[in-house]
Amino acid sequence: MNPNPFTDLEEVQLLDTTLRDGEQMPGVSLTPADKVDVARELDAAGVHVIEAGSACTSEGEREGIRRVADEELDATVTSFARGVRSDIDRALDCDVDGVNLVVPASDKHVETKVGSSREAVVETTVELVEYAKDHDLWVEVLGEDGSRADLEYLERLMGAGLDAGADRVCYCDTVGAAGPERTAEVVSRLADLGPTSLHTHDDLGFGLTNVHAGLKAGADTVHGTVLGVGERAGNVALEEVAISLDRTYDVDTVDVERLYRLCRRVSEVTGVAIPPNKAVCGANAFAHESGIHTDGTLKDGTMYEPYPPETVGRERRLVLGKHAGRAGVAAALADHGVDVDDDELGEVVSRVKELGDRGKRVTDADLLAITEDVQGRERDRHVELVDLSATSGGNLPTASVRLRVGDEERVASGTGSGPVDAGLEAVRAALADESGGVDAVSFELDSYHVDAITGGTDAVVTVAVDLSRGDRSVSVSASDADITRASVVAMVDALDRLSELADDDPNADRAATSVGSADD
Amino acid sequence: MNPNPFTDLEEVQLLDTTLRDGEQMPGVSLTPADKVDVARELDAAGVHVIEAGSACTSEGEREGIRRVADEELDATVTSFARGVRSDIDRALDCDVDGVNLVVPASDKHVETKVGSSREAVVETTVELVEYAKDHDLWVEVLGEDGSRADLEYLERLMGAGLDAGADRVCYCDTVGAAGPERTAEVVSRLADLGPTSLHTHDDLGFGLTNVHAGLKAGADTVHGTVLGVGERAGNVALEEVAISLDRTYDVDTVDVERLYRLCRRVSEVTGVAIPPNKAVCGANAFAHESGIHTDGTLKDGTMYEPYPPETVGRERRLVLGKHAGRAGVAAALADHGVDVDDDELGEVVSRVKELGDRGKRVTDADLLAITEDVQGRERDRHVELVDLSATSGGNLPTASVRLRVGDEERVASGTGSGPVDAGLEAVRAALADESGGVDAVSFELDSYHVDAITGGTDAVVTVAVDLSRGDRSVSVSASDADITRASVVAMVDALDRLSELADDDPNADRAATSVGSADD
Repeated sequence: MNPNPFTDLEEVQLLDTTLRDGEQMPGVSLTPADKVDVARELDAAGVHVIEAGSACTSEGEREGIRRVADEELDATVTSFARGVRSDIDRALDCDVDGVNLVVPASDKHVETKVGSSREAVVETTVELVEYAKDHDLWVEVLGEDGSRADLEYLERLMGAGLDAGADRVCYCDTVGAAGPERTAEVVSRLADLGPTSLHTHDDLGFGLTNVHAGLKAGADTVHGTVLGVGERAGNVALEEVAISLDRTYDVDTVDVERLYRLCRRVSEVTGVAIPPNKAVCGANAFAHESGIHTDGTLKDGTMYEPYPPETVGRERRLVLGKHAGRAGVAAALADHGVDVDDDELGEVVSRVKELGDRGKRVTDADLLAITEDVQGRERDRHVELVDLSATSGGNLPTASVRLRVGDEERVASGTGSGPVDAGLEAVRAALADESGGVDAVSFELDSYHVDAITGGTDAVVTVAVDLSRGDRSVSVSASDADITRASVVAMVDALDRLSELADDDPNADRAATSVGSADD
Repeated sequence: MNPNPFTDLEEVQLLDTTLRDGEQMPGVSLTPADKVDVARELDAAGVHVIEAGSACTSEGEREGIRRVADEELDATVTSFARGVRSDIDRALDCDVDGVNLVVPASDKHVETKVGSSREAVVETTVELVEYAKDHDLWVEVLGEDGSRADLEYLERLMGAGLDAGADRVCYCDTVGAAGPERTAEVVSRLADLGPTSLHTHDDLGFGLTNVHAGLKAGADTVHGTVLGVGERAGNVALEEVAISLDRTYDVDTVDVERLYRLCRRVSEVTGVAIPPNKAVCGANAFAHESGIHTDGTLKDGTMYEPYPPETVGRERRLVLGKHAGRAGVAAALADHGVDVDDDELGEVVSRVKELGDRGKRVTDADLLAITEDVQGRERDRHVELVDLSATSGGNLPTASVRLRVGDEERVASGTGSGPVDAGLEAVRAALADESGGVDAVSFELDSYHVDAITGGTDAVVTVAVDLSRGDRSVSVSASDADITRASVVAMVDALDRLSELADDDPNADRAATSVGSADD
């Protein structure tokens, strides 16, 4: 732990602007219900201020802001407002606690964009702050493009806002153009005037660098968005602000244990995928593949992790690939209850690496199949796909399957919203058939995921499914140029692995497998 | 531009470790051909050192390293080597120019992982450096987990390496645990000993922050990976190191104009998608949606951009959504050659915002459809999908379509690797039919893309296609729970928009449209 470099600062306040600046990300549009959902999560995590939207945008936007304001959250709920009185009126209509009042600060914005003058902007700002304060609003004044503004003018503008009663001012690196030196220079001057927030963007990758530079220069509040969603390269990621302050300086912000679920929720409502290599929330953030990393991690969990995954509400994951080593493979096999001797282990490791060399992901299933082969064991399938057919494109997508379940064959059909959905229904129908004496198999499809498809209509598609029966679950992936086939093959294989677990190892609660594509 | 804070440093050298540390990212595995491809791009961009892999990993990996070394690139080509002689021998077998020799530096690594002692590690390091230098290798010594090491010991270890002839030492924040203060403290001590590199990870979001802290403390070389691929939260992103140094301090690294294509190439070979909000390379990095941003950008391109997109080999993009304003909508309509009067524009803007409010992406096509409606014009379809049917799941996916082309109906069928591919063939066959007197329509499917599907087998799928005929092209998207239907609907709609362009506007070279899903 480093000594806290922020003078007299034991807590940094977070202002979340996911619902405003985040939503300005092209392609992202949140309904009022989405906004309420995210606001509740933010509030539960202890975010101090929630900027719920921009009341001037549209009627739907105002409804969203109003509903967030009506939630009676602990957080202060605000609306963004441009430097015109009607925007403040619209914010008041939404019953918010405060406004984030943005006024142009750089000459480019004052003159070219707004067609005004420095003096006129100062006058308007004073008027609007007084107006907002007269209406009992909490007021933050943002000097738009402040990082590129003339510093003397920015001081005058922000100082006038504070004198008029604003609660705080905000340093805005609106276009993500500033480095940490410029940030420190500007913020130190603003912080001399009054409470100062930081609003940074990541266009140069400096989002977080500038937050820390600004805090050291005297700011006490940070604007951020979950996952760093936002215009262009996005805003600084709220979860990175929180974890970096917590782990490096022991400075409090929000409840970091809720960061992961917060990230997932925002990913769901915005449709913005979480990058696998994203700090805190990425699928790989606590995963280890390479031999030396896995080996080290098995000896000591902290060997290759800066902090325990549980800190942010997650778990560690070991993964196999071309960098696999003996320790990692042995641990994975032990997880599946498979014993191997030393020679077998060596052979399995070398074949896992070979598969990785060919550019393939090596899943636990590949590992099991390789091990079965090395040990000369044959996989005893309980559920097997014999035949599959699906129609789609028309009004009623339909599929039929022929499955071998134990010793009997079962045929069933189903309809759905597409060929894959119909295939799932057909499988479900086949397994619900109890006439043959084998117990009906009920299962839940916990998740169905297809990686983005690019390249052409004949691209090989990889489908990953999680199926569960009671408290057992399996993850399976399958690849095929035919998405229907890949999906149903993965589901049936998962069902088979579930039966295997049920038979062989009553205590197993997890197995993962995969099925190669025709072109493997 | 800030004054250069790096003493006497006009150029920072970049060591790219995409092919080594980047490839250790779970799920990523590059073939030798992939490695050569990426290495050529890196070399063309002027990367100084290319760490091509880890020779100890596998035979396939050695082949990849060997092939990169054989390329006669300008860059120094190296292999990673653990602190054992056989790893250096394997690197020598690959004909590399140098090695990145990693030795444990923290007590956790020295004692728990390697089971050795500080003294023994120093001795081995000296031996191996001498051995490598005797074989004419360029040698960089990396003190693994150096950021968590005892500083006196780290100095002794790295100093011994330099005394034994190493060309440089590397500060490794192996687990991304350090803040900028710790980084500056350690690096300043190492830089007193000799040339020092920085190897940082992004677990706390500090990847780039620590690079800049380290450069200010005396380092002169930075390890990075393209897109920040790598274990856990990944390494610092090479493109962010380059652009931040270039734009903020005018410090040279590589040819920044090649950064975008480099990022795309690495995304293609690794399968790691580029996040839309990623600096330099994200789809949105130079896109503008919100009304005030679009308005400002139309007045002055630099209004909402820190630097021109051309700097990194890209172009600006305007996008419509719920934050749309008059200026942006008018500009988009002008792009499509559509005239509107003031009243119509107001109505179009308000309906675009309404659509955005419902959580929908508003594409150019939605805009065109809205405008047609506002102006009371009817879209005259030249090519229309009347009927579609596809079978899949079995050995021979097949599809048939009934299209209206001009005044006639055409029926055709096709087979393919899956239902969508078969659908494309059926459409192609229908349009190749010249019997009805309408000219055959030949077209190219330039790209076919489906966003990742999550949530369930009944999730609505969004398909985006680019079709072209000669030098005209259109982008179209369509959504449906049935992937076959969404795909074929998008293709046919694109064909229709292409005919429209051909009829209405012989100079148009681009149009974009989208088709709503049944559940809109």
